[in-house]
Order: sequence, then C-alpha cells, then structure tokens
Amino acid sequence: MPDRADWAYSSALMTKARPLTRHIISINDLSNKEIETIFEVAQGFLKELADPNVPYRIGHSTDIAAKSILASLFYEPSTRTRLSFESAMLRLGGANITSADPTVSSAAKGESLADTIRVISNYSDVVVIRHPRDGAARLAAEYSQVPVINGGDGAHEHPTQTLCDLFTLRSKKKSLKNMKVAISGDLKGSRTIHSFVYALARFGATIDPLPAPGMELPGHVDRRLREEFHCRMVSKDPGQPNGGSIDALYVTADQPHQLSLYSDPETDYGPLLQKKTDAVYVTRFQKERWAEKDRPYPKIDAKFLGEAKYSDASVMHPLPRVNELDASLDTDRRAVYFQQAAYGVPVRMALISLLLHLHKNNSLHQFHGGFAEPSFPVYMQPIGTGFSCDNPNCITVDPAERQYAANKFYLVDEDARQRCALRCVYCEKDIESDASVQFVIADATRKTFAPDLAALMRLPSDKLKHHIIYRNAADALAAGFEPRDGARKAHAG
Amino acid sequence: MPDRADWAYSSALMTKARPLTRHIISINDLSNKEIETIFEVAQGFLKELADPNVPYRIGHSTDIAAKSILASLFYEPSTRTRLSFESAMLRLGGANITSADPTVSSAAKGESLADTIRVISNYSDVVVIRHPRDGAARLAAEYSQVPVINGGDGAHEHPTQTLCDLFTLRSKKKSLKNMKVAISGDLKGSRTIHSFVYALARFGATIDPLPAPGMELPGHVDRRLREEFHCRMVSKDPGQPNGGSIDALYVTADQPHQLSLYSDPETDYGPLLQKKTDAVYVTRFQKERWAEKDRPYPKIDAKFLGEAKYSDASVMHPLPRVNELDASLDTDRRAVYFQQAAYGVPVRMALISLLLHLHKNNSLHQFHGGFAEPSFPVYMQPIGTGFSCDNPNCITVDPAERQYAANKFYLVDEDARQRCALRCVYCEKDIESDASVQFVIADATRKTFAPDLAALMRLPSDKLKHHIIYRNAADALAAGFEPRDGARKAHAG
Amino acid sequence: MPDRADWAYSSALMTKARPLTRHIISINDLSNKEIETIFEVAQGFLKELADPNVPYRIGHSTDIAAKSILASLFYEPSTRTRLSFESAMLRLGGANITSADPTVSSAAKGESLADTIRVISNYSDVVVIRHPRDGAARLAAEYSQVPVINGGDGAHEHPTQTLCDLFTLRSKKKSLKNMKVAISGDLKGSRTIHSFVYALARFGATIDPLPAPGMELPGHVDRRLREEFHCRMVSKDPGQPNGGSIDALYVTADQPHQLSLYSDPETDYGPLLQKKTDAVYVTRFQKERWAEKDRPYPKIDAKFLGEAKYSDASVMHPLPRVNELDASLDTDRRAVYFQQAAYGVPVRMALISLLLHLHKNNSLHQFHGGFAEPSFPVYMQPIGTGFSCDNPNCITVDPAERQYAANKFYLVDEDARQRCALRCVYCEKDIESDASVQFVIADATRKTFAPDLAALMRLPSDKLKHHIIYRNAADALAAGFEPRDGARKAHAG
Repeated sequence: MPDRADWAYSSALMTKARPLTRHIISINDLSNKEIETIFEVAQGFLKELADPNVPYRIGHSTDIAAKSILASLFYEPSTRTRLSFESAMLRLGGANITSADPTVSSAAKGESLADTIRVISNYSDVVVIRHPRDGAARLAAEYSQVPVINGGDGAHEHPTQTLCDLFTLRSKKKSLKNMKVAISGDLKGSRTIHSFVYALARFGATIDPLPAPGMELPGHVDRRLREEFHCRMVSKDPGQPNGGSIDALYVTADQPHQLSLYSDPETDYGPLLQKKTDAVYVTRFQKERWAEKDRPYPKIDAKFLGEAKYSDASVMHPLPRVNELDASLDTDRRAVYFQQAAYGVPVRMALISLLLHLHKNNSLHQFHGGFAEPSFPVYMQPIGTGFSCDNPNCITVDPAERQYAANKFYLVDEDARQRCALRCVYCEKDIESDASVQFVIADATRKTFAPDLAALMRLPSDKLKHHIIYRNAADALAAGFEPRDGARKAHAG
Repeated sequence: MPDRADWAYSSALMTKARPLTRHIISINDLSNKEIETIFEVAQGFLKELADPNVPYRIGHSTDIAAKSILASLFYEPSTRTRLSFESAMLRLGGANITSADPTVSSAAKGESLADTIRVISNYSDVVVIRHPRDGAARLAAEYSQVPVINGGDGAHEHPTQTLCDLFTLRSKKKSLKNMKVAISGDLKGSRTIHSFVYALARFGATIDPLPAPGMELPGHVDRRLREEFHCRMVSKDPGQPNGGSIDALYVTADQPHQLSLYSDPETDYGPLLQKKTDAVYVTRFQKERWAEKDRPYPKIDAKFLGEAKYSDASVMHPLPRVNELDASLDTDRRAVYFQQAAYGVPVRMALISLLLHLHKNNSLHQFHGGFAEPSFPVYMQPIGTGFSCDNPNCITVDPAERQYAANKFYLVDEDARQRCALRCVYCEKDIESDASVQFVIADATRKTFAPDLAALMRLPSDKLKHHIIYRNAADALAAGFEPRDGARKAHAG
Repeated sequence: MPDRADWAYSSALMTKARPLTRHIISINDLSNKEIETIFEVAQGFLKELADPNVPYRIGHSTDIAAKSILASLFYEPSTRTRLSFESAMLRLGGANITSADPTVSSAAKGESLADTIRVISNYSDVVVIRHPRDGAARLAAEYSQVPVINGGDGAHEHPTQTLCDLFTLRSKKKSLKNMKVAISGDLKGSRTIHSFVYALARFGATIDPLPAPGMELPGHVDRRLREEFHCRMVSKDPGQPNGGSIDALYVTADQPHQLSLYSDPETDYGPLLQKKTDAVYVTRFQKERWAEKDRPYPKIDAKFLGEAKYSDASVMHPLPRVNELDASLDTDRRAVYFQQAAYGVPVRMALISLLLHLHKNNSLHQFHGGFAEPSFPVYMQPIGTGFSCDNPNCITVDPAERQYAANKFYLVDEDARQRCALRCVYCEKDIESDASVQFVIADATRKTFAPDLAALMRLPSDKLKHHIIYRNAADALAAGFEPRDGARKAHAG
C-alpha cells in the first residue's frame, strides 16, 4: 500500500515554481497569438542585428537583459542550439553559465536531474535544457524556480527550433496561413518534426509526410494531429479522397470546431492536391535514437527538387545535416536552411526577453505553476506507486529520477472513438488498454479495484487523487488492493 | 648529494606570489573573525538577490567586479561548485573563463599543474581550482600570481562548501556557538567533512560522528581536532565519560588554552549528552576515492530522523546526493540542503569580492606570499631530494608535478605526547616514525646524518635549510651522507 | 565528366565572405608593417594590464569591444590558446561563446566544418578555430561571414603564437632585425615552428635548426624558406661555406631581391657564424601527429645552455612543455616562456580589436573576400573532380568535408629550378610530378588532356577554370577525357 504521506509530497511538486514563472516545454505551451508576439519582437531584434550600415554586428544588441543569467544545461551534443541561446543572451546584454558535458558534471556522480535543476535554478534567471530522455524538460521545469526552455528532450519536442522554422517560413511566404509543407526523413525520431507538425496544423497548413521507410510519425503524434489539431487525412490520389490511405496529406480544417474529424467525401480536394509545395522540410536520420544504425534514407537533391511542384518550395533543414541534403543545393535560391539557423539568435532573444518580462508592452501570459492549463484532467499517482509510463525512454522511468517523478497522466477522452487513454504528462505518449495492458483502478479509500479506466474520467478532480491506476489486476493485488467484488483471488504479485 | 643551486630555486617558489595576494586553500586559512566578515557581506548580497519585490533576480547584482575575470580550473566533475562560482562572479558584474574538462585541456598533452597555473593566472584576477589530488590547490597557489580558491582538492578540503554550510547553520540557528552537529557517512573520503569539522570545532560545536563502517575520520584529522582544535573526546555512554570509547563525541572546550586535552572525569557531561542535535550533516559515499565501490552505507530517512533528539535538527547535505538521503525528506521542514546550495552564490560573491578588495570598509588581511602564517616551523627540502610525503594521492608525488613540488613539511611538535611528526604542507597528512619509517636528519654542511627528528625542531629557522630528512639511514647513505659517528656502514642504497 | 554547374558553386565559395572581412590563417597573411601595428596596439594594452599602481588588473581593460562576441571553436585540446583569446575578449569588454569539446558538439552527429562555421559565424563577430586537420582554418574562413583566426590547424600554422613569440623577442631584444635564433625539437610536427620560421625569415633573422632525429623542417617549409623567403643555407662549419651541408643555418639576405638564392662563396660568413644566439626556441614532441610515440628527443637544460654562445639567449617555448625543457631553468634569467604566455592577452587583444575595426587610427587592410592577394595564380577545380591534395591530413581529404572543399592549388613556378608544382591552398603542401604522380591537364572545352603542368601556368587566369588537373592519364581517361593526340588508349580507370 502506498504511504499516504506521499500524496503531500507529490502535490508539493506542483506548486514549487514561482507563481509568475512560465515554462516552454512544448510548442503547444504557446498560443498562436503568443507565437506572433514572439515574431514581432524577433523582427525588431533582427533589424538591429542585420543593419547594413555597420560592418560587423557590434553595437547592435540591446542591454535589456543586463545582469541576467541564462543557464545552459546540455546532456546531449549540441552546437547551434546551445551557442545560439548563449549568443542571444549576450546580444541582450546578459550572461551565461554552461554545463555542456554530462561526463564532467554532477550527473557523473549519479545526481538526479531533479536535484540538479533545483540547484542550478538558484544560480540563474532562466534555464535551457537538452536531455536524451523524452519528457526531461517537463520534469526539470517542475523542480525549477525560474523559467525552463526545452532545448530538445529525447524524441519528444524541440519548440524553439519550431519557432525558428516558422519565423523563416513567415519571412519567405509572408503568412503562415494555408501553406503546404512536405516533411522528409525520420519523422519518428525527430523531435523537431513533432513540434513542427503541431505548429503547422495550428496555423492551418497542409502537411505532406515523406517518411523514410519505417520512420513514419509516431502513433500518438499522428493521433493528436487528427483528434486534437483537427487534421483530416486526404489521399494524395485524387481518386481516393478518403483518409484511409497511408499515402495521404494532413489537411487542416479552416474552422476546426465546425468540421468532422474525418474528411468529407463531398469536399473537392482537387485544388489542394494541385497546389504547389511551399516548403520541403528535411531532417537527418536520428541515429542516436535507433538501434539499427544503417537504414535506407531519402536524399533530397536537385533531381528531387526538379519536380514542378517544388519549383517555389523553400528547402528547410534544422541542421546538422549528414548526407540527406545535397551540398550542391547550398547555392540554390530555394535553400533557406542557413537562414533558419541564423534566425536562431533574434528568435531566441525574443523568447528569452519575453519570458523575463523585459518588454514594457509585450509579455507572455503567466500561468500559476508555470505550465499552460491542461486540456485534459490530470491524474497523478503517488511517487513509486501504480502504473508507470510504458515509454522506455521516458524520463519518469530513468532509475535516477524515479523517486522524483510522479506517474502523472492526462486522462484523454477520445470521444470520436469512445475510447479513453492515459497520456504521460512528461513524454506525451498515449497508452491504451490492449493485450498486455489491462488497466484497473484501485480506490485508496476502499482498498478495492475494478477494471474501469473510463469511470476514472467521470470523477471530479478532487476525487482523482484517491485512485491509483495499475497495469492489471495482478499488480493491484500485489499492492494490497482487493477486487471490488471482495473476493480476493490467488494471483502472484 | 643535492645540488645547492636547488635551494635558490626552491626558495623562489615561496616568494613569487604578489605581496598582496591571499589564497584560500583550507578553512583554517580564515580566522573566525574573517569568516564573520564574509557572512556579513554575504548577508547583504543575499538580501539583494532575494528581494521579493522583483519577479526575477534581474537588476539585483552589483557591478563592483566589472572587468574582473575568474578562471575556473576544474580537473574533476562539478556542477554546483563551478556554476555557483561563475554565477557569483557574473552577479558581481565580472566575467569567467573556464576549463572544465581535463581531457580537452593542456593536461591532456602532459602539462604540469604548476605550469598551467603560471599561465592561467596571467589571464585572470582570481582562480578557483578543483583537482583529484590532495594538496593540489596549495601547489597551484604557490605558482599563482593571483588569489587561488580551493574548490575541492582530493580528500583534503573544500573550504567554500564549509562557508556555505556555516552560513546556512547561522541563518537557521542564529549563532554558530555551542551547536551539536551529527556528521554521517564517508567521513574519511569527504573533503567537505574535513573542512567542516575544523570549523565546527573552532566555533565551539560538539561533533557527533556517525561514520559508515570503516569510513571514520582520517587519523590526522582526528588528531588535529584533539590536539590543535582543542576537542575532547566524551563517550556517548554516560557511564563512560572518558574519551577512550570509539563511540564518542568531540566536545570543544570553551576556553581551550586553560583545559587539558583530555576530558576531565569531574566534568558533568550529562547536559551535553542530553542536548538535542542542531543539525545532521549527511554526505555521499565518495566512491571515486575508494577502490571497493560497493560498501554498506547509512541512509538518512524519515525513520532515522524520527528520534526525538533530531526533532529540530536541520538536515544538511553538500550535494550531490545519490541514495544516502531519502527524497521524501525534501518537503520536511528540517531539510535545508537546497538552501545550502542556493547560499553558494551570495557566500562566494562575498569571498571573491573580499579577495579582490572590492569593499571599502571590509577586506581580508593580506599575508606576504599569500598564505596564513604557519603555526609550526616549515621545513623545505630541495626539489628531488630527501623524504617525500607518503600519501599516495598527495599532489607532491604526482609524476607530472615532482619537479615543481618541493618536499615541504610542518614540523609538528605534539608536546602532550612528546612526539614529533612531519605534516605535509600540501595534503596536511601527518607522518611519524614507525616500523617502516625511521627518519634520519642529514646535515648538508657537515655531510653527516643522525636519527633525530626531534633535534630538527629545536633548530632556528635559518638553520633548517641546511638539513635534509631521509626516510631512513639507507636513503641518507645512498644520497652520499655518512653517519654522524663517522663510521660509514655498508648499507645498500 | 564533371557537371558544369559545379563551377558556379565552386566560385560562390570565393565570394561569400563579407567584403570587409579579414582572416588570419597564416602569419604570411600579415605584412611586416601590419605586425608592427599589432605590436604597437598590444604595447598599449600591456601597459594598462600591468600598471603597478593597481593591486590586481581590475579596471584596466577597455570597453571598446562591448557587445561583440568571439566564438571559440576548438576541435583539439587547448588551455592557453583558448583561455588567452577569451581573456583578451573579456579585457576588451566583449564576450565569448565556446565549443571546446568536439565530442559534445554537432561534429559528434557528423556535421561538416563547412556547415558548422556557416552557422556559428552568424552567432558571433569573430571566430577562433583550432582543428587537427592541416588547412582547416582556411576552409572555415571561406565559409565564414566574420573574421576567422587560426588558433592552430594540424601541423600547418599557428600564427597568433608567432605574434606572441615575436612580441616577446622584440621586448627583450628591442628589434626584430638581424637576430640569430636556434629552434629545437620537433620541427616537422610543430605548426608553431612553421609560422615562426616564416616570420623570422621575413624579419631578417638567421635560423639555426636543431631538430630531433628525423624531425627536420618539412620539405615544403624548407623550400619556401629558401625560394620564397630568400634564405640562404650556410654551413655551420666555416670550412664549408656552401649550403650543401645538412648542418646549416638559414641566413636571410638583407636585400633579398638583389641576391641569388644560394650562398655566394665570396661572402664572409665568419662574423655570422661567431655571432651569439639571441634566442633558443624549444618545442615539445607533437606526439599527437606521430604514429611512433617513443622517439629520442633533445632536452634543453642548464648544461646545454652553459655553452658560451647561449649566454645571452632568451629561452623560449610555446608551452605546454613535457620534459624537453628542464624545470630548473624556470628561475634562470634567460627564461622568457611564461612571459611569452602572458603576452598572449595583450597581443590577442590587439589582433581582435584591429580585425573588428575598433581603433580609429589603426586598422588592418581589408581584402576583398578576406584573404591576402595570393602570390601565385590560383587554380580551382570543381568539387569532386580532378586531383586532390595528397597530404593525408589535409582538411580537403576529410570525408566529412569533401563535398565542401574544392581542390584548389597555387600554381607555384619555381623558376630557379625551372620546375612547377601545385601548392594546396589549404594545407600549403607542395606537390610535384614524381614517380607516382604524373600530372596531366584536361581541357574541359575540348575534352582532351595532355601531360603539361607548366603549360597551365602560362594560361591567363580566366582560362584556368576550363582545365582540370588529374593525377595521371589513367584518371583523366576515367573521367572521360581523351589524349590530345586523339587516340584513346586502353587504360583502366
């Protein structure tokens, strides 16, 4: 049986951030309007940085962040993300402290991320973190006293890269509305892609997936696009308008709440199918996230881009590239990937300065606790009890973090399919009952359990905390609960 | 025979620091009054940093160190020590240069620490160094032109951690006087503990050692506590008031010079034994300093702290922790370890700014050569001659440093026991004659030697330099000296 | 057949630097007058840094580089070069961003240097790069939008070390003219030596090579000294005035253009041979550039320096040292090596501030494209075609860079010997026709080739680009060219 004292501890985690702190973990932590605010501010910084009247960029930066400190906490290799954040902070007049090699830090002595961030957030005014585990940035933010920016967490998200991507598109195409964007390569392992497709959907784009074999968008990203971001699947083959085909586009409904989730056979998608592609977004094989290092991978080159539909397509890449984007494209007028990288400085200057309230008339809304209001009820189990996220790369299952990370899930009610699922608050992977997982709900007050995840969703929030989810009846029995019918059966723990 | 020219070289080492430089190698380099001065200054910085009227800490820091440079030279993993020093320097308005990975520095090419520091101290105004060797910070300081702060040297000391610890205790308990502090864990390998117990004794605390099995305080630390810091051993068992028991407290005499070194059977220690513990100081197993990595180790948790005597005990830890301090204590009102870490910034701001003479009315006394006046005569042998420190982790026996580190010893006269010993000036380990070491003293003028370490202590300082200590007669013979009786015996070199 | 579109791409590389950018890749990128300008500015900074009226160096630095950013990009171990650059930038009032460990950067993901620099140069105002490959700094500069300073590239050059060396000599000897300098150790692998000897020759010094066995100056450095820097070889044995002896000095002609390249038997070199040595320059065994790690190596010690001719010789070393320079010399009045290191800050302050145009009355001439006008015609082949540099450590043959580095050569016309050779623009190694290399020139217009490198040199620059050099006839045939006589022979590709 879990110790009831743990409840208090777990709750404490939710409230230790300063009331006025705001964290950027996912691109979905920013509203469309906030993204536009960031871009307006970034545009001003860009103008200063690029002033052609000054031979170098000396004297361009402002001093608005004077005496502020950015802590860079990088547990994975990085050049451009870290250095562009640090350059941005310096251009704002601020300063940096850096821990860029986990082998020379306290992590080498076995320290948890939760402990590290509690300490580092006392040394700085804002933290940017990169970590190999999905959900690590969220865990860090929960323990931080200052704003945390996700600089890339496992295969989860990389929201500031998406800000640079959108800013580049906006500069090229004037508007983010009604674009058609092809995304090529490792759609599964690339966190950059995941943040990017959410944003594209939210700004009304059509997404054309061109995955490497076996590297399609992860199931939970695909489902969120369709079920939460109002994308419809439309076959690229005009004879097959329905979304049943694998070879389909994600089409964003213009007025999402008035449309059904699936494509309407009456709608004429012909013009959309014929529309030229506005951008081809290429991403490298994320080999650090795959066991098999040698796999077939598409290469984007002049021949590929020779198709008429790509004649005005901006060629984008988050960099670094390896071989998937041909060097001969570097002088092609459509190539914008070095611009994307260069925009990292003004865009991150804007984000940092807005998080630090350095602009009089602009700022990001402040949430209590620092996180955006969740769209689904949040269920949190006492640390060390009940069902843990089944994503083996989730930060919550890292042995060093297990005593600091509660098993915390959104209760996702997918009404279109009448299903319900848990979505890990950290890595945002969805988990449904299936052959290996047969959720049961234990009632801590009555010390019984029953196999009814849907029932949990109907409970008011204040009752949620008295219930614990177990993977199956055997786990609940082992934890000391009895089946609701009262007859305890002989299961092995 | 040693070359006499070496004398000149060795002496030069003593005077190359600027006259007004001051180094902080041991907590004992600071007087109690100086520690109080540091805390007063730190209190002022803390007030600025924590001003609740400002949402973040922007604008709090001063500019008193503008244009000054701190060099961080870290040869061992660190997050909090390095980043809190760097944050402190930035908060003061200064800047940092950092070498945090020995594998990417000149050390990788085989450079000695002595050479590195002579160079780096030209690039900066103050240096903080962390090194795996005991005594490394002292050696670095001897070659530095600017103040050197010990950020942890092997198992020797970590004085700035102790300043943070004392500042935390002072904040919690109002005064550093008459405290009772339990210290748990690896008392042998933890440099933090060594600096801490000296300071506790100096401020009149009672120390309750709770070592992991086989990890008691090192013999030389225990002896210094008793013989130099005026601690008396008092059995925790009221029926056994004498200090003979292993299970004993270190009790600091209030007026040390008027008391004998050993406990007075007439004294009533009852009230002391019943006094509640003011703080429990927990430290991790320093596995990098032990060959056997898997050893039994105490875990401090709610159950341990449930004892009545700990009901008001502040729970302290220098961090990082691994498993020795239960995460469930994080929300316990007695936990102060994250506060300890947070105080790293104002305390280090105070220390740096005082070392750099940035306060008009406060400053640390400046010693000639940068080191506190030694309490014992210093004996220094020409480099490469005579007896070397027998601590295998001492910086002086590192092959890369041997031509830069003189064999230099305090002549410790332990009058209570009528013994004499050498104490290495670098690692501060005591070495006495025993079965394997039978010191003999060679007289460089007369070219003879005799087995009389005690006689050396009676020599005036200016005569010391004409004598060389050898481990035994065989070594002295091998070096070309003859026994004082004139009869050269046939010993193998 | 090479794709003609590649020409456009290759040319683009030449013009992407800003018109007003200036790169420092070789010491020969600076004229003697420019070097004197740097030293004048450095002297001013030195005076400020060393002002004895201020206890530390606080307040000395200027703010002329406020808000400018130096990017340190170090792919090889470094302490002093990186930290002295960073200290210099801070002393100027600027700031730094640092990538000092290739294993934690994008290079770990397989990114090319060309891509990295295109990104990083957007984040900074000036870049210093160290890299294990010869010629890497040049390649980086070609892709950079801001000035690139070579902080050491393979065994090629280390021009800022040479600036420190010359500044030290100038401080000691008042003038750089007519000095006699011995250079000891690994003259082959030491990039420091290569930059240094060019500078010595240009300032009229006599160079006395004292190589470790098998570590003589590389052939192409020796040849450049003789054929381009107007050195004559003079035997150290007065009976053998001619330059035929291995044991010879490099003597710089005072009026180089009026003298023949080889020594005149009529000249009396006696006074020169008897002249005392002004400086002994010692360098460590560059073991990272040698397969065999254990080789005999000269050690410079008091005995060596006891010779009368060294009685006033400054002892120099670029540091780090290992064992080749005895520690006992540290207090010798002739030792200046720590001074050399200390001068790193004012000299680099001067160079950075001049590159950034921060002085009103002084600045370095700006070349279009950022590079000094080449003294020989430049021949550039389309990327991926023709003959590549045969130096296996040249950056152009690094697999990660091959699609970014054109095969680009100076056409060196060594008229004294009526030979011609290619000199790689990146690593500056000379390549001549020999048993294994029988250059042929393919004419892209006519699709034929002929074995006549010399003919290429007679072509006007605008015709050069229509010709491709191949290693031999077989390679040209394999690329689709035919012998000029029209009869295609059966060669394997």
